[in-house]
Amino acid sequence: MSKPAPTPEPPYYAVIFTSTRTGIDEGYGAMSEKMVEMASQQPGFLGVESARGEDGLGITVSYWESEEAIAHWRRNAEHRIAQSQGKEKWYSEFVTRVAKVERARTFGKS
Amino acid sequence: MSKPAPTPEPPYYAVIFTSTRTGIDEGYGAMSEKMVEMASQQPGFLGVESARGEDGLGITVSYWESEEAIAHWRRNAEHRIAQSQGKEKWYSEFVTRVAKVERARTFGKS
Repeated sequence: MSKPAPTPEPPYYAVIFTSTRTGIDEGYGAMSEKMVEMASQQPGFLGVESARGEDGLGITVSYWESEEAIAHWRRNAEHRIAQSQGKEKWYSEFVTRVAKVERARTFGKS
Repeated sequence: MSKPAPTPEPPYYAVIFTSTRTGIDEGYGAMSEKMVEMASQQPGFLGVESARGEDGLGITVSYWESEEAIAHWRRNAEHRIAQSQGKEKWYSEFVTRVAKVERARTFGKS
């Protein structure tokens, strides 16, 4: 089971990507996996959480050390191609929000 | 189908709640619905997005005008009871992060 991403003490940054899909699957799963793998190798990457519910709404939150780390990943050439294909084919709607995490609390049953 | 929450121009605040569930369902669905309904009636509430994937990870992001609005909802008596039951029964693990949304971009197919 996926778990909440372990992250350091705030402050750090979150990119909240909320989307609905088109009916087109062509290459989506492979690209999605590749982008998570590539993102996780970028400088300043802290973690990622992702869920898509039965009603079709998907939420992916990635965590980053700094705005510079986010900007660096945004400029990545393969990521740009994926974003372009996302708009053309895979997503009917999305919102990307960049936010500064100011505080966090964790709960876990031992 | 649920959609990304419409939100005003930044800045505003996001509460990112990422969780895994226990196997205990007792009262969870009803309380979850009630909390979304109550939150949406609070001053400063802007919207909410929620998804739980097949692997069990759930992400709920609620959006608020200000930190004061978040603090006000956190102190709500019924919300406190729900949080306490959540720790006792429904959640095996969660992280709550409070973040200031600094910028946002929207994409939608017409």
